[in-house]
Amino acid sequence: MKEVQEYLNNNKERFLEELLDFLRIPSVSADPAFNHDVAKTAEFVKDKLIAAGAENVEVCPTKGHPIVYGDKIIDPSLPTVLVYGHYDVQPPDPLDLWESGPFEPVIKKTETHPQGAIYARGACDDKGQAYMHIKAFEGMLATQNLPCNIKFMIEGEEEVGSYHLGDFCRANKERLACDVILVSDTSIIANDVPSITTGLRGLSYIEVEVTGANRDLHSGVYGGAVANPINVLSKMIASLHDENNHITIPGFYDDVEVVSKEERTAMNEAPFNLNHYKKDLDIDDIHGEKGFTTVERTSIRPTLDCNGIWGGYIGEGAKTVLPSKAFAKISMRLVPHQNSDKITALFQKHFESIAPDSVRVVVKPHHGGEAAVTPTNTPEYLAAHKAMEATFGKAPIPARSGGSIPIVALFEEVLEVKTVLMGFGLDSDAIHSPNERFGLFNYYKGIETIPYFYKYYAELKK
Amino acid sequence: MKEVQEYLNNNKERFLEELLDFLRIPSVSADPAFNHDVAKTAEFVKDKLIAAGAENVEVCPTKGHPIVYGDKIIDPSLPTVLVYGHYDVQPPDPLDLWESGPFEPVIKKTETHPQGAIYARGACDDKGQAYMHIKAFEGMLATQNLPCNIKFMIEGEEEVGSYHLGDFCRANKERLACDVILVSDTSIIANDVPSITTGLRGLSYIEVEVTGANRDLHSGVYGGAVANPINVLSKMIASLHDENNHITIPGFYDDVEVVSKEERTAMNEAPFNLNHYKKDLDIDDIHGEKGFTTVERTSIRPTLDCNGIWGGYIGEGAKTVLPSKAFAKISMRLVPHQNSDKITALFQKHFESIAPDSVRVVVKPHHGGEAAVTPTNTPEYLAAHKAMEATFGKAPIPARSGGSIPIVALFEEVLEVKTVLMGFGLDSDAIHSPNERFGLFNYYKGIETIPYFYKYYAELKK
Repeated sequence: MKEVQEYLNNNKERFLEELLDFLRIPSVSADPAFNHDVAKTAEFVKDKLIAAGAENVEVCPTKGHPIVYGDKIIDPSLPTVLVYGHYDVQPPDPLDLWESGPFEPVIKKTETHPQGAIYARGACDDKGQAYMHIKAFEGMLATQNLPCNIKFMIEGEEEVGSYHLGDFCRANKERLACDVILVSDTSIIANDVPSITTGLRGLSYIEVEVTGANRDLHSGVYGGAVANPINVLSKMIASLHDENNHITIPGFYDDVEVVSKEERTAMNEAPFNLNHYKKDLDIDDIHGEKGFTTVERTSIRPTLDCNGIWGGYIGEGAKTVLPSKAFAKISMRLVPHQNSDKITALFQKHFESIAPDSVRVVVKPHHGGEAAVTPTNTPEYLAAHKAMEATFGKAPIPARSGGSIPIVALFEEVLEVKTVLMGFGLDSDAIHSPNERFGLFNYYKGIETIPYFYKYYAELKK
Repeated sequence: MKEVQEYLNNNKERFLEELLDFLRIPSVSADPAFNHDVAKTAEFVKDKLIAAGAENVEVCPTKGHPIVYGDKIIDPSLPTVLVYGHYDVQPPDPLDLWESGPFEPVIKKTETHPQGAIYARGACDDKGQAYMHIKAFEGMLATQNLPCNIKFMIEGEEEVGSYHLGDFCRANKERLACDVILVSDTSIIANDVPSITTGLRGLSYIEVEVTGANRDLHSGVYGGAVANPINVLSKMIASLHDENNHITIPGFYDDVEVVSKEERTAMNEAPFNLNHYKKDLDIDDIHGEKGFTTVERTSIRPTLDCNGIWGGYIGEGAKTVLPSKAFAKISMRLVPHQNSDKITALFQKHFESIAPDSVRVVVKPHHGGEAAVTPTNTPEYLAAHKAMEATFGKAPIPARSGGSIPIVALFEEVLEVKTVLMGFGLDSDAIHSPNERFGLFNYYKGIETIPYFYKYYAELKK
């Protein structure tokens, strides 16, 4: 291990430069305008896997964005780790809130990251975290210290719902055969409070369109007599939560996992300071489902949020228009046992049922994914635990995350393998937001920790 | 009169070509990107007034867009008519719904306009209607048949609330002195049902901004625990109407004019076919305040409509963002006795009071204007009545309009003169909407009718 860590340490500067190059390619998977850049990014990943020593490296086409595969089988009798990550990123909007270009990475020191952080879209989610694995692999291989076989599967559609990953896994079951899937796409509680993610929420993402009249109207001539789709949509959205902030869709809570009192107590003992939380977000009050704490609301409870809304005149100045249409993007975070297809169907049925006759509603499901809970008594969990303990100097806390990585449930179903979620970001790293960043501490700590995972995993699997 | 009408008839082709040139300049007053074009349009109006024979023509600067003035005083003892119109237009958005370019006028025949209509932004509102007056003036002057003095005041800020017109009128009281103000910026009920507008609604236009956290957040990490400004804004907007579609702002109805049973009965006897109305708009049901008919809802009752809403991710695909901000443009149409400043203040106070502690709200008043009712027993109303009767072959109906021309109240206050609203558009002409149009029948009928107004007005004022 000493030899590996020396190698990694001696190449830090280069590892950073390479990541910055990776971040400069705007691989926005949601917007077809970036298709060329997404393809270029896949080639970048391929080249870097080859340079690190991977074999059978291939940019595998799908019906959407390609998946990059590569492996290094050193001994079929050793355990095999499949590293999953994604090279696509969220759209950078709103652009005007970025302090520097989203695809022009800069390094700046902050209160949270006194050693500096890389500011760029994808720095943390997930280019930075995926690249840690390629560099740790390079170090282990270069120093002949790779104790497991390794496979890489780096996809380009995670931010749009991993549309084609399921088909790819089903078609490549043999090629992807492994003992465990290792993913760094989550966060730790703080740089001095390491944690391992043991739960993820599922997702149901929907777009709705409300149409009133067949054309935009003059609000003076028709206002007050013809349904205004913005007002109607607002009313429909408002009705999706009751006065206790419970979601009102019939059947929505039917399958929600009931978390034991013990787990809820343990969960609420993790370090959390409500005043710091409010100060960091600059809010006077929190807001959520009655009967649950902030930690619970963001982990074991399902939610419904509008992610976007638009309609009518949204330019400068005033326009007295009664618009024909209004739209919203609405997503629900789901918890274990809630099925995303079922929830999507419940939403659709309910949303259509509450529309007045004066409008027409179209509900268009975007994508979904299932929640997941990972056990803490498996060799892979223990290997991650020991690895983090070795590099952070303290035992990591098991923690449920509010985010969704639907592929965890997919891998369990299709590849029949458990996933370990050993992420190194921070919740405050503004992933999906302007000024996304990834601490240099976190990037290097990840690269340092990963070889320990392989070491302990190989030992525990013996 | 025969001579005038012959002149007008002989120059129809040229009158149309000139209007099309006028329509080709994109004079969008709301958007600073068009400032240069707005200025160019003022110059166009100036040139055309000079060409028609007006004197003292001047592009008068204001702190916003300029006002074009011109006059022709033939005899100080004759009555003076001040023609008001506006050369600015509404923004053309949404552009993708236009069948032809908003500033590339084309002539097409339709069911409503079997003789053809000019499709362009501003065709009806108000370039087409304002230009009728310049051409009628040209005809009267060229044939030495102008029976009154005439003054023109064509402004460039009507669509953004006539911000600087009040100051201009106050500063130019002498120059604008007149006996009546003549405006064509309203509609007739149908091409075979002429009408004169006797009432206009006032307006209060407001923009609101709701802020949750200080940055866009990941909806998985923070969703369910931090207020979502889109959901909150939706709830706030929804609460502005009760289950009977009454507006819930305290004090909102306090000053609303109570219209007599007789007037309501007469109003509802005007031709109106609900099935045609629904079919034209392609809606299954109408929607409005309980206890009032469609005709009443769009004339004698105040309303509240969202004219625009936006927040979060509104691009292609999906983004799981919990946005920092959401916005809406909200306007209220007011009826006689409601004061727009008072209503704006009531809205602001109420909207701020219903915001939960988890968000911050900014309410920004845009502009307002007062409602107006014009008497039907004045020389100017009777002149308009007789003029329309002469050219349409039937008596026009007095009709209250749902729209707002706040300058009518302004003129009464500052210039102490009544306005007559003799418009020639149709409600179905899609003003403020894509594919705005103005019938050739209507354009030429306006040019034909205007000289009769001058004739009868001069006679009645003798």
